[in-house]
Amino acid sequence: MKTDMEKSKNILLTIEYDGTNFKGWQSQEGQKTVQSVIEDALEKALSERVSINAAGRTDAGVHAYGQTANFVTGSRLPVENLKTVVNNFLSVGNKRTYPVGSVRIVDVKTVQEDFHARFSCVGKTYMYKILLAKEPDIFKRNYFYRINKELNFENMAKAAKRLVGEHDFASFQASGGTPRKTTVRNIFDIRFDGEGNELYLFVTGDGFLYNMVRIIAGTLVDVGIGKINPADIGEILTSCDRKKAGHTAPPCGLYLYKVYYSKEEMEIWTDPVGTNIL
Amino acid sequence: MKTDMEKSKNILLTIEYDGTNFKGWQSQEGQKTVQSVIEDALEKALSERVSINAAGRTDAGVHAYGQTANFVTGSRLPVENLKTVVNNFLSVGNKRTYPVGSVRIVDVKTVQEDFHARFSCVGKTYMYKILLAKEPDIFKRNYFYRINKELNFENMAKAAKRLVGEHDFASFQASGGTPRKTTVRNIFDIRFDGEGNELYLFVTGDGFLYNMVRIIAGTLVDVGIGKINPADIGEILTSCDRKKAGHTAPPCGLYLYKVYYSKEEMEIWTDPVGTNIL
Repeated sequence: MKTDMEKSKNILLTIEYDGTNFKGWQSQEGQKTVQSVIEDALEKALSERVSINAAGRTDAGVHAYGQTANFVTGSRLPVENLKTVVNNFLSVGNKRTYPVGSVRIVDVKTVQEDFHARFSCVGKTYMYKILLAKEPDIFKRNYFYRINKELNFENMAKAAKRLVGEHDFASFQASGGTPRKTTVRNIFDIRFDGEGNELYLFVTGDGFLYNMVRIIAGTLVDVGIGKINPADIGEILTSCDRKKAGHTAPPCGLYLYKVYYSKEEMEIWTDPVGTNIL
Repeated sequence: MKTDMEKSKNILLTIEYDGTNFKGWQSQEGQKTVQSVIEDALEKALSERVSINAAGRTDAGVHAYGQTANFVTGSRLPVENLKTVVNNFLSVGNKRTYPVGSVRIVDVKTVQEDFHARFSCVGKTYMYKILLAKEPDIFKRNYFYRINKELNFENMAKAAKRLVGEHDFASFQASGGTPRKTTVRNIFDIRFDGEGNELYLFVTGDGFLYNMVRIIAGTLVDVGIGKINPADIGEILTSCDRKKAGHTAPPCGLYLYKVYYSKEEMEIWTDPVGTNIL
């Protein structure tokens, strides 16, 4: 028999955001962050303050198509109404001022009691967008990393192929992140795609060190412009020396693209390095 | 023989801007406008304060690919260096804070003494961008007018065709603009284009009344969703009654696309109403 007091529910959100005007994901006192904006909207929807756990904490200026975050609530608001209600609060304004419409709940679902957006995650795909253009495009300034030199895509694909697999990525880690037990990570796939003068990089792995995708993107660009030889990637990896890898590409080109909770979901990304732009 | 004192030059700028975070084009005390940001950058480049005349004064939130503006200067800075110098000042900051990189000089050229960006203009093309999508796209929220209903493109093309030509556009004028001697304008062409779920409208004419393109776009959308019958456009024109036309489409979808100073430049736009999306 159901009691009047509903059992608490564990809810998983899939979230899209334009990170341009945020100080990153994680709540910080007095700062406009994606997490705090969502928690404020949830507070209005659920009539209780909840704390959300994200799959990945993105930095200032980084975007997301498919960030995920879960929270536990005792609220009786039907889960099927949550998306609409929270999106309404997200677009009409909030305790903290923020750019209207820059965060959106894409999907809401109930998950098992022990599910955790970060710990249950088996892999993630990040997308990195590069604009190949001599002149700046002001409409893309916050969403792309513009490169005004010619890129050698074949060399970039060679270098990417060498990065795929289980490696110690210490050379591809910036200082300043949360300390980690190990710097070994498994990159399942690096894929290139593109349209017109836009180049997209998709990096899928079981986990990522601080700034790892941005350093991979920067290193591949350095390979593309001839500053780094693709044959040197192995040496860069084994050196475990951040100074050997390429530059850190800017945050505005980076998107948390997809978070996986089962290996089956990931399969479409696990072919060898692919590119249709060559 | 050249004297030490150079003759003053009349200079024409072509300007691209993201209007999202501006209070429109025209300088207003204490407001962040495109004009004031450019005049501030020019002051640094030329070491003198100049006043620039734009071809069209765009409203808050309206963008431009090809706004034009001229000014007269006695500065000896070589015209060929002006673009780089001003763009440097535009992207490094300014007396007024503004979003870095949202204004860019596309082209600079010397024009005749009696040239005036507005009075010498023989026509303009405005572009209006519509996103056909059930769900919002946060990355396009400031750059498109999203429509979540099906549009009948054939009816929209019929209505557009009826708007082309010399008409009294009083029904397509918002109150609040600069008073005009006449509300008769000549629309040379309305053209549809598109890519994926993006629909682009190009409206070329000799001049435009206040909010005219936004009311044309809103009226064509109302035709597209079946709210206005394309056969009624003639009646809407002859009524000279703003209430008979459709709604005013939002500023974020509007772009000042191109400004013409000779009829020859305009020719590519003067075929009959065209569309490749049907």
